[in-house]
Amino acid sequence: MSDSPRKVCVVLVDRANYGRLKPVMRAIDRRDDLALQVIATGTMVLERFDSPVRVVEADGFTVDSRIHVEVEGSIPSTMAKSVGFAVIEFAGEYQRLQPDIVLIIGDRYEALGAAIAAAYMNLCIVHVQGGEVSGSIDESARHAITKLAHYHVPATRRAADYLARMGERPDTILTIGCPSSDIACQIGLEVSPEIINLRGRGAKIDPGKPFLLVIFHPTTTEFGEESAQVRALLEALARIKIQTLLLWPNIDAGSNHISKEIRIFRDREDGGWYRNLTNLTPENYLKVLAAADCAVGNSSSFVRDAGHFGTPVVLVGSRQDGREWDAHVMRTDPVADAIEAAVREQLSHGRYPKSTLYGDGAVAPRIAEALAKLEPYVQKRLHYPGSPRNEGG
Amino acid sequence: MSDSPRKVCVVLVDRANYGRLKPVMRAIDRRDDLALQVIATGTMVLERFDSPVRVVEADGFTVDSRIHVEVEGSIPSTMAKSVGFAVIEFAGEYQRLQPDIVLIIGDRYEALGAAIAAAYMNLCIVHVQGGEVSGSIDESARHAITKLAHYHVPATRRAADYLARMGERPDTILTIGCPSSDIACQIGLEVSPEIINLRGRGAKIDPGKPFLLVIFHPTTTEFGEESAQVRALLEALARIKIQTLLLWPNIDAGSNHISKEIRIFRDREDGGWYRNLTNLTPENYLKVLAAADCAVGNSSSFVRDAGHFGTPVVLVGSRQDGREWDAHVMRTDPVADAIEAAVREQLSHGRYPKSTLYGDGAVAPRIAEALAKLEPYVQKRLHYPGSPRNEGG
Amino acid sequence: MSDSPRKVCVVLVDRANYGRLKPVMRAIDRRDDLALQVIATGTMVLERFDSPVRVVEADGFTVDSRIHVEVEGSIPSTMAKSVGFAVIEFAGEYQRLQPDIVLIIGDRYEALGAAIAAAYMNLCIVHVQGGEVSGSIDESARHAITKLAHYHVPATRRAADYLARMGERPDTILTIGCPSSDIACQIGLEVSPEIINLRGRGAKIDPGKPFLLVIFHPTTTEFGEESAQVRALLEALARIKIQTLLLWPNIDAGSNHISKEIRIFRDREDGGWYRNLTNLTPENYLKVLAAADCAVGNSSSFVRDAGHFGTPVVLVGSRQDGREWDAHVMRTDPVADAIEAAVREQLSHGRYPKSTLYGDGAVAPRIAEALAKLEPYVQKRLHYPGSPRNEGG
Amino acid sequence: MSDSPRKVCVVLVDRANYGRLKPVMRAIDRRDDLALQVIATGTMVLERFDSPVRVVEADGFTVDSRIHVEVEGSIPSTMAKSVGFAVIEFAGEYQRLQPDIVLIIGDRYEALGAAIAAAYMNLCIVHVQGGEVSGSIDESARHAITKLAHYHVPATRRAADYLARMGERPDTILTIGCPSSDIACQIGLEVSPEIINLRGRGAKIDPGKPFLLVIFHPTTTEFGEESAQVRALLEALARIKIQTLLLWPNIDAGSNHISKEIRIFRDREDGGWYRNLTNLTPENYLKVLAAADCAVGNSSSFVRDAGHFGTPVVLVGSRQDGREWDAHVMRTDPVADAIEAAVREQLSHGRYPKSTLYGDGAVAPRIAEALAKLEPYVQKRLHYPGSPRNEGG
Repeated sequence: MSDSPRKVCVVLVDRANYGRLKPVMRAIDRRDDLALQVIATGTMVLERFDSPVRVVEADGFTVDSRIHVEVEGSIPSTMAKSVGFAVIEFAGEYQRLQPDIVLIIGDRYEALGAAIAAAYMNLCIVHVQGGEVSGSIDESARHAITKLAHYHVPATRRAADYLARMGERPDTILTIGCPSSDIACQIGLEVSPEIINLRGRGAKIDPGKPFLLVIFHPTTTEFGEESAQVRALLEALARIKIQTLLLWPNIDAGSNHISKEIRIFRDREDGGWYRNLTNLTPENYLKVLAAADCAVGNSSSFVRDAGHFGTPVVLVGSRQDGREWDAHVMRTDPVADAIEAAVREQLSHGRYPKSTLYGDGAVAPRIAEALAKLEPYVQKRLHYPGSPRNEGG
Repeated sequence: MSDSPRKVCVVLVDRANYGRLKPVMRAIDRRDDLALQVIATGTMVLERFDSPVRVVEADGFTVDSRIHVEVEGSIPSTMAKSVGFAVIEFAGEYQRLQPDIVLIIGDRYEALGAAIAAAYMNLCIVHVQGGEVSGSIDESARHAITKLAHYHVPATRRAADYLARMGERPDTILTIGCPSSDIACQIGLEVSPEIINLRGRGAKIDPGKPFLLVIFHPTTTEFGEESAQVRALLEALARIKIQTLLLWPNIDAGSNHISKEIRIFRDREDGGWYRNLTNLTPENYLKVLAAADCAVGNSSSFVRDAGHFGTPVVLVGSRQDGREWDAHVMRTDPVADAIEAAVREQLSHGRYPKSTLYGDGAVAPRIAEALAKLEPYVQKRLHYPGSPRNEGG
Repeated sequence: MSDSPRKVCVVLVDRANYGRLKPVMRAIDRRDDLALQVIATGTMVLERFDSPVRVVEADGFTVDSRIHVEVEGSIPSTMAKSVGFAVIEFAGEYQRLQPDIVLIIGDRYEALGAAIAAAYMNLCIVHVQGGEVSGSIDESARHAITKLAHYHVPATRRAADYLARMGERPDTILTIGCPSSDIACQIGLEVSPEIINLRGRGAKIDPGKPFLLVIFHPTTTEFGEESAQVRALLEALARIKIQTLLLWPNIDAGSNHISKEIRIFRDREDGGWYRNLTNLTPENYLKVLAAADCAVGNSSSFVRDAGHFGTPVVLVGSRQDGREWDAHVMRTDPVADAIEAAVREQLSHGRYPKSTLYGDGAVAPRIAEALAKLEPYVQKRLHYPGSPRNEGG
Repeated sequence: MSDSPRKVCVVLVDRANYGRLKPVMRAIDRRDDLALQVIATGTMVLERFDSPVRVVEADGFTVDSRIHVEVEGSIPSTMAKSVGFAVIEFAGEYQRLQPDIVLIIGDRYEALGAAIAAAYMNLCIVHVQGGEVSGSIDESARHAITKLAHYHVPATRRAADYLARMGERPDTILTIGCPSSDIACQIGLEVSPEIINLRGRGAKIDPGKPFLLVIFHPTTTEFGEESAQVRALLEALARIKIQTLLLWPNIDAGSNHISKEIRIFRDREDGGWYRNLTNLTPENYLKVLAAADCAVGNSSSFVRDAGHFGTPVVLVGSRQDGREWDAHVMRTDPVADAIEAAVREQLSHGRYPKSTLYGDGAVAPRIAEALAKLEPYVQKRLHYPGSPRNEGG
């Protein structure tokens, strides 16, 4: 027992989160006292999203299992059923892999499913990116995962403070910082045109000239409004009409309405200025984010990762409301006029100073060190010391 | 819309929780502005547990759906899969019932499944008994449900305080008190021998003479230790050997190990002094709890409900550690000597003063009133006012 | 009991099968002794397929439940899991709808799921289109459904004969004929250009001029070969290059590979001659099939329904091997040269005489009559009379 | 590829079927060209049934996976959901084990689930015991499995004949005989009292004196009648009152009603003459069956395996109607008088000549040989040669 390396099972749910966990996986791989297990699920294993799991393997990692959990439908009830299905499938895989620690990042429904299965199976859970605040169902899922997790790696000081206030034991907060900062600090920032233009469809984008990066996901708690919201965004883009790289939305309830609006827009609009892209590798995504003259939409990476590069951001709608952000972010409602004005303002402002709000670029080795040193435990208990005397425990 | 009564979907997961919710269901039924929907699940619908859902119907309520969620096995992985299955099945029923509010009580895995499905379907969740502290996986599940719930009915002041500290908005804490106190204050306390002796097997119990009430559930976070724990308990009982009413455990992982030990004990031990019982109606259970000279084991009702009656309690093991309790509770480790000593001490002490720690007997109408008046909403957000300025929202 | 109409639950799994069942649903609706229940599932409820369930409602039917069963992935294991999920979801809906008879058509995995749930719930199953022979997993699924079904409506005399040879009791074979023939005999055959051109994308098709109708589904038993097969088909079409209406494939394992090849083809090829369409109403589909100068691909409707109109067909690959067909069908391997040659031959041949192989146009009322008159039963038993004497029963 | 042994995945669903497959597993193990994989599911992995999977491991086999598929409830809808859940879980395990051949026996719902998952995953299925006829849902499940299976090992000539008549290709019928005959021919027949009396509860049985072996399972197609049926059986036994060994029923819908009646009977009846037993190892079960003076109930082993030993059988009710049996079987309706009379008649008749109807004792090596030599294929097609000319294929 004492000699065999500790098995850390990393759960990968989408390309963005793989990007954040990749430096951690590398750091785990480098240690003799840790053994890496990888479960890929969610959009990682869907061809519709270009099967990002292939990038994981191309990066040299062994993927122990692929879990398909999505009940197709893209409505709230199928999203709920997908959570349930995820719990069932993760329980089966944990049974087989017998990990010592399950490492989960973020707030997606697949991550919640992974956390529930682990918690009921008495597995020790380490959660990265807890304690943040946002909109969408992700907000509730994130804090529910916190309440199931045994250890925490918050990305910011505020998040760490919030975790402690929520009743998590201070000694279970392992370190602070988002590991995506590690990649952000290491990658070269030149964007070759091939990265953008080899795949996807639409206009050829010249990364040497000004361009927008656009991602718009559904806010599930506003289900039914996503079509109007993305139409407003597309309308604003059509007025500005500079080079635009448009990524498809994630798989949450409402996402197919957004995709549909994009397709309708594409069929209607002359396509000389924008390009649709399904996926980018983590590094290429960060390069593009770093190179963009403005990022427009509601991806959490615009709040978190864009700050590493000082890329101006126009944050559209409520999906990230509550998150910490730095000066590079300008928040607007999903109204065409407001979006247009904000994008024009950001374009004329230009780049912002780099921010270290979400990490200092040396986070992953600290996480790996903590994974090797922590003491796994099972029974959590709300930590509010100094409570009234008439209690047990 | 404004004229049709608000649909409140009450989720019943076991006999104990039905007992607590029954006064609330009555209070809902009495109001014109509320319409009651009932989903019965968990052990409520299992014949092995005497199908307590039949009591619900005998009490005059219409049960809208029965959901079977238990993947048989009684091990951690099947318990996890049962949560997943619960999410799937609840999503289907909500889709059909279209409730305005989902009312969930407690911390069982079925309740967590019900909460997840509701949260991802943008249904407004009211959670009763949040903010308490205990052992077992219930501790984590309870707080995870809190993080998914939109409104809260904590049972105690401390629980209300904890909910606020966990970042729940104060105005979403509707009232304080456990509705089980309502029944406790209303029922007549005489226990006719029929209640105990009509069903079950073993010795005939005379409620007019001293008797013990014993319930011992698994603590899932100590899976694998439950056999030794219950053996210690049974050993202590066999030494004391006064009239004993022994209820079967719940359905959590490890419960079949406990049942097995009880059966082995029964086959070995001369049976003149104890009786096994599968189930009691909520009222009869409370009567028996009120009449018992000592309650021994680890049921949460020993901490919560026994206080209403001042019944002495010997709490065995860590399952309730962290909960608030009053002077009637004596906590021991699951060791035969310790249990024996504690039971003898409680028997010689006799009854305690009644406690109102868990409610004043007028909770249910306050909950119903709150259900009628609250404003359903969907998007939660961690409530820590006075946060740093550089955030959205 | 005797007075209330018999509840017939019709299971709709895709647009094609809705087209075939629609006359039956109308005929059920017209009878006082039958009450129609409708469950829509599979691609019927997916927006990606234009939610054909909306057509059902637009046609005036009430849809009692929508079941989402597709576990996204489009690989054999997710297809298998979708069957399992279908069984679970159908069991829930049957529990609620309490039908007297479940009416299932065809051989799709959703239909198999519906049949298994019904069989284990002691519901009487009537199966339409049993006894046919084909390729793909549908072949096995069809006969498995036969073995679960209590009554049968085969489409052809040979199918009826095969059912009897398979051990089905002759008196459980209700009538012969495919109800799609009813629509085929009733619809006007003029195709207005709007039907084709209002939705979808690509070239505008003039139905007054020669055009091809192309549908190519995966043959799941040849999983992995579908990309090469559809490339061969597209290559042949590109050589012929007359007006072509191309429908997307179904949802079977491998379908996304086919979609991908079509998209690659579309991105590469000049698009002046073909149009992609997601869906057509049942009537419009038949009109287009009737109007096409040649139907190319492997849809079962090319074998069954095209015969009603004498439309020439080039059947590509093994997916329909074993089915009965009339002279209008020419079968080729999925090789570009062979396909090209066959299409050119069919185009120069022109229309064929109408066939009544799959029905005489008066099938639906006969089915409805049979549904009203049959005696539901539960226990099936293989019917091979004249067996050895030493058996029970 | 050509050098690595062929992976044969054996699916074990209950103690009885493990008993039949054990000689096959041994024979597989002995061959270099075959590699054994074992999946245990159904009651094999349930402690309530004494976890028979432990016997498999004690017998020296490695169990590759344990699948829990039972949705608790014991009603038709939960039985249906268990099938669905089985499909999902088997798909996951096959994905991991990547077998070349899946070996399935019998007609239980777990076996149907295993077959569906395999069929949709393009795995080659070998089915043992197809072509038989019986009652209960097993009848339909068995033939549905036949229609999904690629090769067959029928137990009798009639079964082989029926398989061919059902349209299975003659060359896919590998051999004839039930491998349980192998064990029956090899075991010593002396029953030591320990086998019977070490576990279970009730009277001590002396195997040297006359005793009955009783097993009564639900007939799912008569759900709701099982309580009255078993009461009639118990009433008859109470009248005869010789030593009786009573095994608990399986897990099908209705089984808990049977268990309940047995418990009520046990609580009421003086227990000097009967003993309840949960489980026996395969060999011990056969020894007891061989030694019993009469077997009473409706287990298929009474029809099949009792014949190997000439043990008199009273077959109660319709569950086995349609099966072939030899002179040792007397069939009665589930009526107390009839059962009593039949048992008395069989007791006075005494043992019958041994039968080879279900196998000659050398079946397992023939199956293993066939498994090594067969050519796996995927696409089935109904085999009715000499069909009309206008068909494809």
